[in-house]
Formats: sequence, structure tokens, C-alpha cells
Amino acid sequence: MSTKSKGINAERELIHKFWSKKWAAIRVAGSGSSSFPSPDLLVGNKIRKMAIECKVTKEDKKYFSEGDIEKLKTFSELFGAEPWIAVKFNKEPWFFINLEDLEKTPQGFMVSITIARNRGLLFEEIII
Amino acid sequence: MSTKSKGINAERELIHKFWSKKWAAIRVAGSGSSSFPSPDLLVGNKIRKMAIECKVTKEDKKYFSEGDIEKLKTFSELFGAEPWIAVKFNKEPWFFINLEDLEKTPQGFMVSITIARNRGLLFEEIII
Repeated sequence: MSTKSKGINAERELIHKFWSKKWAAIRVAGSGSSSFPSPDLLVGNKIRKMAIECKVTKEDKKYFSEGDIEKLKTFSELFGAEPWIAVKFNKEPWFFINLEDLEKTPQGFMVSITIARNRGLLFEEIII
Repeated sequence: MSTKSKGINAERELIHKFWSKKWAAIRVAGSGSSSFPSPDLLVGNKIRKMAIECKVTKEDKKYFSEGDIEKLKTFSELFGAEPWIAVKFNKEPWFFINLEDLEKTPQGFMVSITIARNRGLLFEEIII
């Protein structure tokens, strides 16, 4: 399966999880290629909205450019949503990471398995 | 150009219009094919969110099935957004139609050019 297909499958998995808890959830068309800042997923209920950048990796660290994080922030501020990173490491559950919990690197930001385990929220915790 | 391409171009045109007014706007991936109810567009700012079904037609009436409207309502209620129809007739501007302003037909709902002109809102009016 291509990296792109794996990414889309991962996004669909999260979409299903949110709908199963009565959150409305959609994948954003062309989120990687649009000229406007946009997240991978938008989920919401009457009270909360979340803009989510969604990543799957076989490595034990996942890196983000400053631009990626800036775009997620910009979109979320304009739309009125909370910005979140959802990351899935091998054999780990989905972790939801607050942008403030990412580690700063010279080129951007990083989340490791350890950071995810220590500071991330599980799906069941994020929808409360 | 295929009907699908024309539809996507129309959606993109609206996306650009919303961004030009500092509303965050996205197209929903697979909105026609997803197993979950989903609109064509989701747009928002800090105060308002709108779920929009977006149609272009050469005819002077546009029909909707009950299911289409039901899905738009369901999504909007769960997500916490206002449901709107955006319709573009030949040589007319975009009109935004409240679901209550659609005309009931035996099979579903309909909006005509006359209804759109009389009851619809222009883009400039809807973003106020």
C-alpha cells in the first residue's frame, strides 16, 4: 500500500471512531495540496470543534515543519477550532498531542513515542 | 468539462470567496460517496459555522431528494453548524437558501430561480 493510501486509511479510521461516539467528522479534500491552510480532519459536536493533523509513522519520532504547524494554527484560529496532532506509532494507540507539547527542533517540531505516551491524550480522553 | 469537474470548480470558487473574507473554508473529501452524512463545504469563523450543499445547474429548477436534505440536517445538528444550500443558476449570482425556503415536492425538495431570487441570500449577505 502506498504511503498516501496508508495516510487516507488512517484518516478514515479516525473518522469512524469519532462518528461511533456521535461526533460529526470529515476528511478535508486536498488538505496537503490546497493553497489555503487546512487540516487533515475536521471533527465537532455542538460544543467543541477540532482541526486535526493526522500522521502514521513506522519511526519512533515524527517531525513537522514550522510551516505545517503554523498552517494548522492559522486555520484553527480563523475557523474557531482547537488545533491537534493525532499520531499513530507502530503498536501504539492513537495519541492526540497539544501543539504546546511538541518538542521544538532547529527546523520545526517533533513528537516521539515517549512524548506521546507522557503528554498525549488517548481517543477516549479527547472526546470527553 | 465533466459534471463532476464543474461541481468541484464551483465548490472551489466558493472556497476562494469565503477565504477572501477571512472565513476558513474547506471542501469535504468524498462528500457524495462517504457512508457518513457530509456536506460539500464546511466554512466558519469564530462565531458561525455553516455546512453547505453546493449545486450548479443549467436548468431553472434544482431538485433534492429527502435523503440529501436529511443528511445535511443530521450532519449540521451533530457538528453544530447552520445547514445551507448554495445554488448557482446560469447568469445568476450564487444564492444561499435556508432549508425552510425550499419548496416541498412529492419526492423531496426544489429551488427555482424565482425562489432563489425572492428568498435566497447573496454571498455578501450571508457572511454578515
